[in-house]
Amino acid sequence: MKIKEFSKVVTKYKAVFFDAYGVLKNYKGIIPGIEGTFKFLIENGIDYYILTNDASRSPEQLADTYLAQGISAITPERIISSGMLAREYLQYKIKSGTVAYLGTEKSAHYIESAGLKTLSIEKVDLNDLDSIQAMVFLDDEGFIWNDDINKVINLLRHKNMSVIVANTDIAYPVNKHEISIAIGGLADMVEEIVGKTFIRFGKPDAQMFMFAYEQVLTKGPIKKDEILMVGDTLATDIIGGNKFGFDTVLVLSGNTIPDQAALKIASSGIIPTYICESAII
Amino acid sequence: MKIKEFSKVVTKYKAVFFDAYGVLKNYKGIIPGIEGTFKFLIENGIDYYILTNDASRSPEQLADTYLAQGISAITPERIISSGMLAREYLQYKIKSGTVAYLGTEKSAHYIESAGLKTLSIEKVDLNDLDSIQAMVFLDDEGFIWNDDINKVINLLRHKNMSVIVANTDIAYPVNKHEISIAIGGLADMVEEIVGKTFIRFGKPDAQMFMFAYEQVLTKGPIKKDEILMVGDTLATDIIGGNKFGFDTVLVLSGNTIPDQAALKIASSGIIPTYICESAII
Amino acid sequence: MKIKEFSKVVTKYKAVFFDAYGVLKNYKGIIPGIEGTFKFLIENGIDYYILTNDASRSPEQLADTYLAQGISAITPERIISSGMLAREYLQYKIKSGTVAYLGTEKSAHYIESAGLKTLSIEKVDLNDLDSIQAMVFLDDEGFIWNDDINKVINLLRHKNMSVIVANTDIAYPVNKHEISIAIGGLADMVEEIVGKTFIRFGKPDAQMFMFAYEQVLTKGPIKKDEILMVGDTLATDIIGGNKFGFDTVLVLSGNTIPDQAALKIASSGIIPTYICESAII
Amino acid sequence: MKIKEFSKVVTKYKAVFFDAYGVLKNYKGIIPGIEGTFKFLIENGIDYYILTNDASRSPEQLADTYLAQGISAITPERIISSGMLAREYLQYKIKSGTVAYLGTEKSAHYIESAGLKTLSIEKVDLNDLDSIQAMVFLDDEGFIWNDDINKVINLLRHKNMSVIVANTDIAYPVNKHEISIAIGGLADMVEEIVGKTFIRFGKPDAQMFMFAYEQVLTKGPIKKDEILMVGDTLATDIIGGNKFGFDTVLVLSGNTIPDQAALKIASSGIIPTYICESAII
Repeated sequence: MKIKEFSKVVTKYKAVFFDAYGVLKNYKGIIPGIEGTFKFLIENGIDYYILTNDASRSPEQLADTYLAQGISAITPERIISSGMLAREYLQYKIKSGTVAYLGTEKSAHYIESAGLKTLSIEKVDLNDLDSIQAMVFLDDEGFIWNDDINKVINLLRHKNMSVIVANTDIAYPVNKHEISIAIGGLADMVEEIVGKTFIRFGKPDAQMFMFAYEQVLTKGPIKKDEILMVGDTLATDIIGGNKFGFDTVLVLSGNTIPDQAALKIASSGIIPTYICESAII
Repeated sequence: MKIKEFSKVVTKYKAVFFDAYGVLKNYKGIIPGIEGTFKFLIENGIDYYILTNDASRSPEQLADTYLAQGISAITPERIISSGMLAREYLQYKIKSGTVAYLGTEKSAHYIESAGLKTLSIEKVDLNDLDSIQAMVFLDDEGFIWNDDINKVINLLRHKNMSVIVANTDIAYPVNKHEISIAIGGLADMVEEIVGKTFIRFGKPDAQMFMFAYEQVLTKGPIKKDEILMVGDTLATDIIGGNKFGFDTVLVLSGNTIPDQAALKIASSGIIPTYICESAII
Repeated sequence: MKIKEFSKVVTKYKAVFFDAYGVLKNYKGIIPGIEGTFKFLIENGIDYYILTNDASRSPEQLADTYLAQGISAITPERIISSGMLAREYLQYKIKSGTVAYLGTEKSAHYIESAGLKTLSIEKVDLNDLDSIQAMVFLDDEGFIWNDDINKVINLLRHKNMSVIVANTDIAYPVNKHEISIAIGGLADMVEEIVGKTFIRFGKPDAQMFMFAYEQVLTKGPIKKDEILMVGDTLATDIIGGNKFGFDTVLVLSGNTIPDQAALKIASSGIIPTYICESAII
Repeated sequence: MKIKEFSKVVTKYKAVFFDAYGVLKNYKGIIPGIEGTFKFLIENGIDYYILTNDASRSPEQLADTYLAQGISAITPERIISSGMLAREYLQYKIKSGTVAYLGTEKSAHYIESAGLKTLSIEKVDLNDLDSIQAMVFLDDEGFIWNDDINKVINLLRHKNMSVIVANTDIAYPVNKHEISIAIGGLADMVEEIVGKTFIRFGKPDAQMFMFAYEQVLTKGPIKKDEILMVGDTLATDIIGGNKFGFDTVLVLSGNTIPDQAALKIASSGIIPTYICESAII
């Protein structure tokens, strides 16, 4: 598969969806030069969105971190996070009451903005669960794993309720050489132990792509194959984009290093429409 | 959880989505009395669709089998099958060439109607794969398992291509006492052996519900919680409907027998909005 | 399946292997009356051993807890723990150097008694891994999950080494209403994230039963079907005992409650030779 | 990891266990030169056994195929097959009656030599199952997959019984470019569909290595680390041998090609004691 120049690829499309980590930023911060990409998209009238499996912060907070690093083109309404899907679920399915959560107070924003009361798992009283209507896994920080993960397990054994995982990732990079377990990894362990079926939001699940697609549609008619999904991970961005009907670009600036791209594509059977060095223009 | 009368539940909604097997029909044919349900829906101006993990026959052929048993209310355009999602995928992602398939000639309809050439796996020449662009699992009938499943495995080892599974079910009932492996079950085995990632369409995947939701939306605005999903299986109909934001009814006329409903709900953590004896009105 | 009296069953065998939790003890301590069983076995010349998925304490320490509750018949040499298999592995495969571990200092006994240096994961320096030869999961206590589990993941990414899980259990009861994640559950999560293959010791793995069988053989010839395995859990004690060739008793004093025994046997396909109320004589 | 000469490695051990396929033979037949290895072992007084996940033929028939290709050193008593473990299980656990099987008549030898009646699944009458005591998966040949695999599923739904899988492999090579599903792969699919727990025999399971170890022990005392396991597959031969306490050699004449050995070891965490080009001396 030949490596293409990103600018030549992107101009064939009306809209682009970007994965964040490994495409726009990495452990050092914003990938230098990426601001040029957004300048180019705006000049060429190509719409764009960021699709991120991140429920630790609100779109407003995420946009602020881009702005702080000099990227003003990524405004809150351009960010689609898996936390927004969790919020939509809560709005439709949990009409009232309290939702218990694992995560920081910041991450609980997604529950509060659904109009529901929130309760950090630490503060849940296992002997008084009447008001608790659902449990949400939001972030791997903000709680004591030893105590609070075990408490979630016992909560779910004491009362049957919907369990929502607002991020499907099992790990994330913290610096050049180290990774950390993501909340999706902790949720997988809890699900195995309690034997129940959790509801997960995030790439590669179709609902994430649909949510973004619906945003683009509000601006006028657009067909699925007029949209390009750009990501660094075959198992989330590329397979998810492909399945939904988008064309896809695998960039080699993150998870998939140049040496192994061909091997990974061959062994996984996940085939991007294009491969590009990066999303920089 | 109290059992409700279906007529009292359904009148709260603008549209109803029905699973087919275990809700509208069973191994004996149409469930007696189900024609009254559609009469009631039409009289009350409630829209309805059938959502089925079935890629063995086209919507036209499926509608014919209902008509042959006296149900005229289920017209082809009211049927959403997982095969239609496979077709949409092929239309967006495979622009030309030949698609190999496992299934009957009838099931190949979904590929042909996407404007592509079809080739039964039996006729594939492993030494001449240039024109083959994708492989689709359609139906468990129409081929010799010993030979043709092994041939699929070697096809996928010889050439990297998209693999689509047009039915996520692993088994289906053939009569009161016996089941048969469904094409989804065969696909799971092949996927394990070749170690690649296949693309699956069918409940409980969100894309199936979205496809149906888009159909309803063409008739006017409707919110997700104005739609009711009716099914007999917690792990497909109910969890899928819940996750998408629909309200859900578990009926006890199929897979989930009355004695075990409460236990299954408690052990799986999949909680329907309502439970009804059946969908008969 | 008819429920038999344990005393009538056990007298058909030359030796009995007992699971500990749910058979000899529960969250309250020793199951009242169980001392009579050992008196009976000794009087009738029936040999006995305890097989436990427990690497948190040495056989000596485990025997002390029985003695403290009035059971003198369970001496250290009658206890076979999964930690002993981990120790045997280390003796054969890791000839020198340091072994990192997750667990309490007490649990590290199994590594030390293999003649190796131990290093709690907390004290491992990720920039100086030359001496670290293996990693062992011993106990869920004795470390800070947030920090130390992530550290294990990065240790295994930095240096390729054998990873041993000295307890296959994923959870254990802490009182009547609550359970806690066991070290086997944490190890499953880490294995999923690092994508490597760990080596596990504990029931239902054959090596556990073989280790016990070899102990009995040292006292004279005995055939596998002259040994009875007694346990409360189908998925570990019973399937493991069956597979090894032992006859098996499912007791209803622990994990498998009387109401659900028949259903669990039918749905799992794991069939004990006998069912008894308890192991009390 | 440096590649060592096999003759220099093997002389450190009292006994050697060989995997068959990829070590002694491949799709073309016996690997040329392998007869020299056995001459060398005999001259140096090193004991040897063949450990094979093959239940399609008896040790006598397997030995005949070696003899027909000029290898007289591999006599039936030197062959340990997973079928022998299945036979041992049947002898201990199924005292009388009929055992249903999937496989050729030849493979049914393992059941017959356990003193039991055999019945090909094709001949089983689902309405008269009184005499059927167990079901054994032996070989992928000798039956019609479409009909007979579905029949096994319905057999297991109609009557609860032990299910034995006499070969854990999911696929095997049939020629240079093609593989075929092995009976272990078919059994995995059936197990997923019926939701029961099957009993599997074959590498990497400890029971296979123990069975072989017991054979060697009959000739005199030998410690586990005086035995060398030679195989071409990390996930069966090497991890299984390591876990049991043997030293291990990965040979590059089969499944693991020279270019990928280092990568596969690093990514799997399965580390052989040595790597050799082949087992040829």
